[in-house]
Order: sequence, then structure tokens, then C-alpha cells
Amino acid sequence: MKQGPGCSSVGYGATQEIGPFIVDTDGRVIKFNNFSWNKEANMLFLESPIGVGFSYSNTSTDYKNIGDEFTANDAYFFLHKWFVMFPSYRTRSFYIAGESYAGKYVPELADLIYDNNKDPSLYIELNGILLGNPETNDAEDWRGIVDYAWSHAIVSDETYKIIIESCDFKSNDTWSSEICSQGVDEVLKQYHEIDIYSLYTPVCIRDTAASDDRSMLQVMMKRTSNMIPRIMGGFDPCLDDYAKAFYNRLDVQKALHVSDGHHLKNWSICNMTIYNNWTGSKPSVLPIYKKLIAAGVRIWVYSGDTDGRVPVLSTRYSISTLGLPITKTWRPWYHEKQVSGWFQEYKGLTFATFRGAGHAVPCFKPSSSLAFFSSFLLGETPPSSR
Amino acid sequence: MKQGPGCSSVGYGATQEIGPFIVDTDGRVIKFNNFSWNKEANMLFLESPIGVGFSYSNTSTDYKNIGDEFTANDAYFFLHKWFVMFPSYRTRSFYIAGESYAGKYVPELADLIYDNNKDPSLYIELNGILLGNPETNDAEDWRGIVDYAWSHAIVSDETYKIIIESCDFKSNDTWSSEICSQGVDEVLKQYHEIDIYSLYTPVCIRDTAASDDRSMLQVMMKRTSNMIPRIMGGFDPCLDDYAKAFYNRLDVQKALHVSDGHHLKNWSICNMTIYNNWTGSKPSVLPIYKKLIAAGVRIWVYSGDTDGRVPVLSTRYSISTLGLPITKTWRPWYHEKQVSGWFQEYKGLTFATFRGAGHAVPCFKPSSSLAFFSSFLLGETPPSSR
Repeated sequence: MKQGPGCSSVGYGATQEIGPFIVDTDGRVIKFNNFSWNKEANMLFLESPIGVGFSYSNTSTDYKNIGDEFTANDAYFFLHKWFVMFPSYRTRSFYIAGESYAGKYVPELADLIYDNNKDPSLYIELNGILLGNPETNDAEDWRGIVDYAWSHAIVSDETYKIIIESCDFKSNDTWSSEICSQGVDEVLKQYHEIDIYSLYTPVCIRDTAASDDRSMLQVMMKRTSNMIPRIMGGFDPCLDDYAKAFYNRLDVQKALHVSDGHHLKNWSICNMTIYNNWTGSKPSVLPIYKKLIAAGVRIWVYSGDTDGRVPVLSTRYSISTLGLPITKTWRPWYHEKQVSGWFQEYKGLTFATFRGAGHAVPCFKPSSSLAFFSSFLLGETPPSSR
Repeated sequence: MKQGPGCSSVGYGATQEIGPFIVDTDGRVIKFNNFSWNKEANMLFLESPIGVGFSYSNTSTDYKNIGDEFTANDAYFFLHKWFVMFPSYRTRSFYIAGESYAGKYVPELADLIYDNNKDPSLYIELNGILLGNPETNDAEDWRGIVDYAWSHAIVSDETYKIIIESCDFKSNDTWSSEICSQGVDEVLKQYHEIDIYSLYTPVCIRDTAASDDRSMLQVMMKRTSNMIPRIMGGFDPCLDDYAKAFYNRLDVQKALHVSDGHHLKNWSICNMTIYNNWTGSKPSVLPIYKKLIAAGVRIWVYSGDTDGRVPVLSTRYSISTLGLPITKTWRPWYHEKQVSGWFQEYKGLTFATFRGAGHAVPCFKPSSSLAFFSSFLLGETPPSSR
């Protein structure tokens, strides 16, 4: 479970979404998560790449090479060493799950595992990958952002018309069009006023003392970058603040063995230096999808449908370009007698939505996302009756 | 404030949305509404046409003539008599507000008032009309329903493609295309599983004893009809049930002077006979908009943006066809430090959205809808800073 680039899997995934403990609203303690995904599987949360969370490298040049490829190699290296250390897990089924920018990381790591599996001494039983609101294909992702913003009444008809007429997202040089750039900037400007990761929930209103966090929110999404950390994702819009407070406690850092208990390390939920200096982002991981599907690796993609950052439209556009045969047509899936979302099954890929969930789906729909995770592990269709 | 056709302004508007008392969850009592619109203005709730709620006519042929024109004439006749009875109100500013199918009623009544105002003895000081998620223009309304359903991930890309390629909503004979009809039926089929009036809230799960209500939900929207009552609109999805229970109490009926206290009248929130037999629905009231704008009558239109029944896209398409000059471009408006929605001002018309609100906006956003109503009465731009 990884996010980013530059954002903490521990701060987000483990502490806000699917871990056994969730940070409490006081930012001082953690509380049990009744819908932790480790009810269904053993979980590893990986801070990746170096520099995220409390992770670091003593080799300063490492930081100059950070990008998709470096991250995949580093994560693979970790995994290999971990299986050497815990050989009893080597024969178990192995899955990788991720959300947001991990839409790039996860297939890239899976690709590396698949290639290295030719060496029996390195074999990992990779059975599937699970992707939530994943960045997938830059051109389709941007088109989805714009279409979604318009259809969800974030921008005017006039702004939308300008973008449609002036932006070629499939171009390598989209932003050289000044008119296109201004149009997309107008979209992002509107999104700065609400939570792009959850359109219909309030934003966290902080007191003025924490106004630097507010400015962090303002810079979160720039047209000139394809890579954006997820800030402010939860239904409680202040979850990030609680996590930040929690991991910046001396007693917590000491208990985690990341500090000697005397010197506080400054923990951020996202490392903005990594985010700003990211290089070597693959414009599309769809070729990897094709390779993994051919290899029989199960691919499930899900989408919280009230997220404006990696909208359900982006994901549908991306999947559509794969041209996979449909094996089970669009229909609702249910949890606790309500429609949890819709799903469609393709040969080799299952796509599902979570109705009314933002970017970090388990924050919004903890119970149904656990049920969905269970279906994924079993390779079963999600419940399709009320 | 009126809805329908065939639905009760008292059961919806007064008892669930903007009246001084809202029906409580036990269906036995009413409770204070802290955000009642009568904090800002004197309110009349009109059951219209005859047969809605407890209203009736002793002339049985009346029921054969029910339609838009009959309703406007009847409402006008009521108003005239009411002003004769309460002459002190005649010099006050007068506004008409309505939602849903009242998007037809309200302009039609305003049109009649405007025409009759040439007779000084009939003069009513009509200053403005306020329309929430209004049906406006059938062709644009249907196109909006379909585009909205697709962009909100209610239907598949495949279904959407079929509709786009086969449906001509501007035709008088849209449903003669079997392929188009099947496509739109597929949209409606998906909506039967959730609350079309509020995409992201749960539906009311009733026990089996009340299963006839469930079948009412199933018939609520038919492609072959342009006129649909609003069933199940509130954030508490069972509000309709509470209202139904409340108005079917003998003591309540006696207190309202609609029953002698011995014989219970069967009260329904929507009269399905009226709904099913409606004739003479105007396909568009946009010509009336033009007339009223030229006459200086203030027109404000708002749209809860999570409603699939009269979606924000439908309303934007309709307004767009008017081609009015924009006087204030698209921007957020705020309430209690959060973005309440967006608005755009045109010469003669203001359009605003309510972020995260379903069809019956005041159910979902009571406080901000009262603030918005206040802006409307004052003719002031809604608050445009946090």
C-alpha cells in the first residue's frame, strides 16, 4: 500500500484508511479500526521511496535519482530482503495494493516482480494487484479531470469550452498552449476552494497559527506537474492534521524506534521536496496492464466516485483504451442492503466504483471497502444483490 | 412553493424543507425548523392542482382537465381571492418559489400574473421567481439526465454511447427509436437501485409490510412520461414515510380541519392518478423566462448538484440556450466558511448551485438555503468570500 509521490503509506494507508489502528481526533492516540484490512490478510505498509515518512538514505546521491524506476527497484530490493528474512511467507499468495500515484508504482513493481520471477531463487507468488483511484495514463487522466470538473459543476460551461477547444492532452507539449493552460488553471483555481479529493465534504478549517498548512493546500495541484500528493483526503477533513500531530510526538517516535526519545524528528505526511523534484514518471502504465493480464495476474481497479483528483471518468477512459472484452456488464454491487457502487468485469480486469467515496476510499466507506477487499482476495465477483 | 405534478407542497415543502415545522422521525409529531424560510418572508404553501394533498374539487369534470394551464388558472384564481380576503398584503413584494416540476408551474403562474397585471384591480406586485432543480425544457432536461448519469458513473460507457448515437431529444418522437428507448430504460433501471434525487445518500429500506411503497419507488420514473413526482428526496431517506404517517393521523386531520375527527382521509404525498393522467405539459418555459426578464421580474435558479432527476447539467443546458449576457462569471459562494456552491450572474437571471445537495435542496442544506433565500429577497449576490 503506497501513495505519493512523496506521501506516507503509514500516515495515510495505515493510520487513516486500512490499518489496524487509526489516529484519533486528538492527534495524541490511536484507536482500533473495526474495518482493518488485516482481518483478511497480513499487511505490509511500505514507506517508499526513501525520504517518505521516517525513511531515509545515508547515501545523499540516492535523493537525486528518485523517480518511478528508482522507487520500483528500491521496493523490490526491500521485498526480496524481507522474504529472505521471513521465508515462511514466501509460499503465500502475494498481492500489491495502492492508491493515487501508486497507480504508477504498483504496476511498475509488479512488472519487476514478474520479470525477476524467472529466477526461481527470487520467486514471489504474485497473484494480483489492487488499485484505488489510480493515476494510470496521463492523457486520459487529464481529460477525465476536466470532463469531471465540468459535469460536476466545478467550472462553467465557458471554461470547459475553452479547454475542449484548446487542449490536446495526448500531446507531449500540452501546456505550450497558453489558452489551454489558462483554462486548466481556472479548473484548479475552483478546486482550491473545496477538497478536490472529496467534492461534497467540508474542508478542514484551521486556525491562523497553522496557516502554512493552508498554503500547502493551495500548492497541492499544479497544471505543470503530473504528480500530486494526496492532501486532505478523509471524510473528517482534518485527519491529516491528527496524523501529523501524532507522528510528531516524542513518545510515539521513541516507541517506533525512529528517535532516541530526546530529539524530535520533523514528520510530514508528504515530503514536498520529493514531490517537487520527481522525475521519470511513466506517462502510462497500460502496457504493463497488458503484460500482467497476459500473465494471469489479477487486476482490480476501483474508484471512489466523488474524487476530482483521479476521477472515475479518468479511470474509465484509461480502461476503455485497453479494449478488453467485457465478460460481465455494468451492474450495481451491494453492501448492507445499499448500492455500494457499480462494477464491470473484463477479461483479466475488474473495475468497480464506490458510490459517494472520495479519493481515499476506505476513509469514506470502511465497511464496504473491507468487503470489497475480501472479494478481491477470493477472486469473487462483489455481491450483486441487495 | 409547489411541486409535482400531483405532489404535495405541504407534505414536501412545508413539512420536510422550508416550513416552520418539520415532521419528526416518529411520524407522530412535528418539530421546530431552525431554518424556516418564514424567518425572511411570509409564506403561503399551495396544494395545487386540486386532488393534491387534502385539496379537492366537488366538480368531477375538473379532474379531467388537469394540466399546466388548468393549474396556473386555478392557482391564479386562488391568489386573487386570497388578496381580496387579505388586502393588507396587496402592496407587499410578492415572489413565487418552486422546485422540480414547479419549474413549469411557477413561470406559467408568473406569466398569468404579469398579463393580468394590466388590470389595476388585479395587480400583484410580482418581483421575482425562485426555482430549485426545475424542469424547464424537455429536450435539455433529458440530455442533462443522460450526460449526468454517465459522468456520475451511474451507467456504463457502452450504454451512454448507445444513447448518444440513437437519441434525438429535440424530436417530438424521441421514444419511437427502440434503441434510444432501451438505452434510456437502462439509465432508469440503474437509478431504481439508488435514490435518483440524491445520488450519494442511502435509500430508505422499508420492512416488507410497506412493500407497496417500494413498488411506488420503482414506478417513479418512466421514460414515456416527462412529468415525475419527487419521491424520497431528503437526506433522511425515510422523510416521506414520516410525513405520510403524520398526515394520516386522525388527530392531525382533525386539527387541520380536513376531517371530522372520526373518518380518516387517506393522504398520499403524491397523487399518482394526477401524475399518470397529466396532460398539456409545456415542453419549454424558456419563452416565459424571456418575457419575464424583459419585464424586469427577477429570476433566480438554483440546483442541488447531486440530484440525478433534474441534474445541474440539465439546468445549465437550458439556461445556456437563452444566450443571456454574463454579468458576473462563475465563482464560488460561501456559507459558514465552506463553499456552498457556485454561481453565475446573467443579465436578468442568476444561477447558483448547492454543492452536495440533492433534489430538495433545503432538506440537505437547510442553513445555506435560508441564507440564499435571503440574498434572493434582497436581490443581492450570494456571499462570495469565505
